[in-house]
Amino acid sequence: MAEFVYDLRDLKFIVKEWLDMEEIFNLEKFRDNYGFEDIDLVLDEAYKIAREVIFPINKEGDRTGVKFENGRAILPPAYVETYRFLQENGWGSANESLASETAMPLTLYRAYNEMFMAASPALMSYVKLTTGAANLIYRFGTDKDRRLFLDKMLSGKWSGTMCLTEPNAGSDVGDATTRAYPTDDPRIYKIKGTKMFITGGEVNLGENIIHMVLARPEGGAPGSRGLGLYIVPKIWVNDDGSLGEPNDVTCIAIENKMGLKASATAMLSFGENDNCRGILVGDPPDSEGRSKGLAMMFHMMNESRIGTGHNALAQMAAAYYFAARYAVERIQGRPFTNPKAGRVPIIKHEDIRRMLMEMKAQVEAIRAMIFRGFYYLDIAEHSGDREKAALCRGYADILTPLIKTYASETAWPMIALAIQVHGGAGYTEEYPVSQYARDAKILSIWEGTSFIQAMDLVNRKMRMKDGSIFAAWLDERRKFIEQNKEARGFGAEMQKLEKAYRCVAEIRELYASYYENMAEKGELIPLYALRVLTCCAQLFAAESIMDQALLAARKIEEPGTGHHDYAYYAGKISTAKYFIHNILPHVYLLTDLIKEADRSALECPEEALVIG
Amino acid sequence: MAEFVYDLRDLKFIVKEWLDMEEIFNLEKFRDNYGFEDIDLVLDEAYKIAREVIFPINKEGDRTGVKFENGRAILPPAYVETYRFLQENGWGSANESLASETAMPLTLYRAYNEMFMAASPALMSYVKLTTGAANLIYRFGTDKDRRLFLDKMLSGKWSGTMCLTEPNAGSDVGDATTRAYPTDDPRIYKIKGTKMFITGGEVNLGENIIHMVLARPEGGAPGSRGLGLYIVPKIWVNDDGSLGEPNDVTCIAIENKMGLKASATAMLSFGENDNCRGILVGDPPDSEGRSKGLAMMFHMMNESRIGTGHNALAQMAAAYYFAARYAVERIQGRPFTNPKAGRVPIIKHEDIRRMLMEMKAQVEAIRAMIFRGFYYLDIAEHSGDREKAALCRGYADILTPLIKTYASETAWPMIALAIQVHGGAGYTEEYPVSQYARDAKILSIWEGTSFIQAMDLVNRKMRMKDGSIFAAWLDERRKFIEQNKEARGFGAEMQKLEKAYRCVAEIRELYASYYENMAEKGELIPLYALRVLTCCAQLFAAESIMDQALLAARKIEEPGTGHHDYAYYAGKISTAKYFIHNILPHVYLLTDLIKEADRSALECPEEALVIG
Repeated sequence: MAEFVYDLRDLKFIVKEWLDMEEIFNLEKFRDNYGFEDIDLVLDEAYKIAREVIFPINKEGDRTGVKFENGRAILPPAYVETYRFLQENGWGSANESLASETAMPLTLYRAYNEMFMAASPALMSYVKLTTGAANLIYRFGTDKDRRLFLDKMLSGKWSGTMCLTEPNAGSDVGDATTRAYPTDDPRIYKIKGTKMFITGGEVNLGENIIHMVLARPEGGAPGSRGLGLYIVPKIWVNDDGSLGEPNDVTCIAIENKMGLKASATAMLSFGENDNCRGILVGDPPDSEGRSKGLAMMFHMMNESRIGTGHNALAQMAAAYYFAARYAVERIQGRPFTNPKAGRVPIIKHEDIRRMLMEMKAQVEAIRAMIFRGFYYLDIAEHSGDREKAALCRGYADILTPLIKTYASETAWPMIALAIQVHGGAGYTEEYPVSQYARDAKILSIWEGTSFIQAMDLVNRKMRMKDGSIFAAWLDERRKFIEQNKEARGFGAEMQKLEKAYRCVAEIRELYASYYENMAEKGELIPLYALRVLTCCAQLFAAESIMDQALLAARKIEEPGTGHHDYAYYAGKISTAKYFIHNILPHVYLLTDLIKEADRSALECPEEALVIG
Repeated sequence: MAEFVYDLRDLKFIVKEWLDMEEIFNLEKFRDNYGFEDIDLVLDEAYKIAREVIFPINKEGDRTGVKFENGRAILPPAYVETYRFLQENGWGSANESLASETAMPLTLYRAYNEMFMAASPALMSYVKLTTGAANLIYRFGTDKDRRLFLDKMLSGKWSGTMCLTEPNAGSDVGDATTRAYPTDDPRIYKIKGTKMFITGGEVNLGENIIHMVLARPEGGAPGSRGLGLYIVPKIWVNDDGSLGEPNDVTCIAIENKMGLKASATAMLSFGENDNCRGILVGDPPDSEGRSKGLAMMFHMMNESRIGTGHNALAQMAAAYYFAARYAVERIQGRPFTNPKAGRVPIIKHEDIRRMLMEMKAQVEAIRAMIFRGFYYLDIAEHSGDREKAALCRGYADILTPLIKTYASETAWPMIALAIQVHGGAGYTEEYPVSQYARDAKILSIWEGTSFIQAMDLVNRKMRMKDGSIFAAWLDERRKFIEQNKEARGFGAEMQKLEKAYRCVAEIRELYASYYENMAEKGELIPLYALRVLTCCAQLFAAESIMDQALLAARKIEEPGTGHHDYAYYAGKISTAKYFIHNILPHVYLLTDLIKEADRSALECPEEALVIG
């Protein structure tokens, strides 16, 4: 099995050179705990852990998967040990959770966490879910809830889940039928219903599992506004923190999935024996039966959707690094332009370089885009400057669907390139790349499908506050072009970027006009939504990598900067150029298609579209 | 598990209405055996077999895979039975092999075989390889070879393989190191070497396995021109046809692959005990050590590369049909343009329609393109009109890399759409679509990677006979546009097609100019080769589906043609429009990129491209 390698240099470039980490480290939340001097320590040590501790279990997790016996889901022992190692040694949820006083800035946490996700996506899904559940309790729970649950969760003794999906309520979560029945204790409800696709819904990672469950209280309004949120421990937690009785939560099945096989995806039955208790989070239903369960759940969504995009990025990056290493080691064929030369490592072949460069450009542009998202989230969450915080929240809101979808949709073709570079070897499970393809495919589906994200963009984010936030976001793109269009050596690239900017501006006006003529144009909104999202994402990704290239160009010219970094900076410049010349022009094509608004997909008779 | 459905109507449209099957059935080879009246019989019965016999074993093959014990590769019993059923009942190699007097036209054979490949790609790989090996013996073997091997192979008693790849010779087959040592008998050589990625290299389908092995005879020239071809039976075949001693062919390993798990991919050692005998095919090496082994092998390549593209098509088509059926059955969400309406089957959502239509358009355009390829091959092989046969051979030569690569590269994103339509369910192995993704990925690699195909196009096919064949092929595209540009209702589409034609014409000139200035432009040839191939393929696929739509438009207007076919024909018109408006414009984008000829992928320092 090939050795795990990761682009530590690019991560350090982002957090040490490119992003304004000074501003982040100066936020009150972090000021006393973190600074520039921590970056190398954290990232170097994390890289070592990713290589030596996490990656070695990744293939075993894939091969062995989750054993499901007598209602118990059993992970390979190495998985359990590694999970505990991370949580107990301060590499897990405690670094990310709002509940933790020593939580890191997302920008820093995510820089090292990216390597962990790349080393074992299945393992890290448990950490992420536990953090997410803990954050919900921290934000919306009572002091008692926090006292009972948070320490145990953040230290990894208990794991956490989020339970939204049901067999008949997936993308449309408002149709959930799980019910919550009041008891004599106003904060305690009896829960009854079935949830599915619950990551870590049953697993032997810790002594208990804390489920955050959406359910409809009796008399609750229909649709999503009637859903409440409940803490449902697998084993009841007594007031003194000790474990009580099992809480009537049964695992019915563990899904047999295409990938992510060590991530236990459970179908759970709550209250089969009418004996499942949940603790209400937030207020009981109001007089019209409305609850804020989904709104609370969504409070966490920005970060976890960006997290899904980040997961996709980590996987495609790892696949790219494996492919690049294979390409220098594998000897095959002779150079096309010099066939008399001997056999060469395949990286000498132009088409292999094209594939590697395509991966590198997507990976680095998407990574740049994502870390700008984390930067916005850090400011939004912790800045004392409320105006700036609000602006950053708005930008993060816009970036969320772009990152989630563009990264997860791009992972699939990029990992295919990594397989292709490996040739037949890439199709075997002796090499790591095929597993990434299988592991990553879920990411365009969970946490809201690509279409859900696209509609979130065009129907909500582009229109929030009368479209003013999106307008401000778009104006930032214009300003970047304005400020840099004379940048030496990048004239052609800035022109292409400006053309893409004008495309997105045009799309925005077109979509605004659709809303004014819903009868005739309404169906075009969802029909082209994903293509609109792709245009916005490629524009922002291109700008982000361009911004990095501008910095790299300055660094190269600084006298005395170690020449050992020349290749990195020169590579960054080539990468930005590649992205802008070879990937960004898809925006022009897509804009033409969006404007042309062909409706043949709607006109085709359904009987012709469906066979049999 | 969902039921297998397939678009029998589209297959019948192709062979009953669209292609000139009259011409095919009138070829001397087929005249006495096949006619229009056979089409329905064959296709209807084959569909039944695909649904009832083949598809039911497909998932079991994936779950169980190949067991490798004591050097033996064991398939699930149902697999072996089904293979024998097909071969013994006239549904297998005998219908396809040149050796068979009752072989069908490829156009007809492939129409039903497509459903079989869709129902179980792994199973059909054995049939295909057996046919391929038999055809080699038929074309180039002696009468004795034919007598000893063909009947047994075509009846399925013995299976066949083709052994090219070695651990250090994959894409560069000329570097093969397997050796052939002469013996006292001038037709018998001792074979020694290791071959890998051999489909069916060891398997319990029949009593014997006939390997067609490329090896370098002692004193043979270096490179591919020194390779000879040898028949190497797993068990020696005595002159009377009875089985003799085991022939010192050892299976070292069966690969653990991402998909196609019931297709045994073997690593074989020939002559470990210096006791492996091979029968020379064709002439011994000439005075300069040259043999025609690879040329003979390549004689079969056109058909088997188109076959690989066809396999990809079959799989993406099956995935599409499953997705479409799921989309009418799965209830989720409310219409965007009418949110007060109740929940609807997801096919009512515009984005689901977009995904289904994207799949339908690619599937039907690629199918049309592929069947034109089979038509050309039928004429090329069997026509008495030698000029026409030569022209069709030339067109088939051009289409071969287009079909192989465009279909296999397109399968991956299309099957991802089929998964996406299924949502989380598509990620589980309870539904069939994820298996198609895993099974199909190899197709862009085996029988020559996409890059090998792209170079075959730009470096060989575009230039053969001084480029005159490609020029004639391109002129056929121009003529189609000329003849149909006034077609009522398709004005916009014909314009777009013409623009794409002009793009390809421009690319052709550009590439010709590269060859005149190799020093400066040479490296652009491989760098953009795959994009050139995509442009040619999309142009031809668009023309093919457009041609079908023109026929459909005429059929719709025929008085009295059963209105029950209205949906099919109207769907065909929508599909052609979708392809031309939404897919074909990629040709414009790619042409811009090819002309711009950005070299950043070559300029990036290797140290920046490779991590670690």
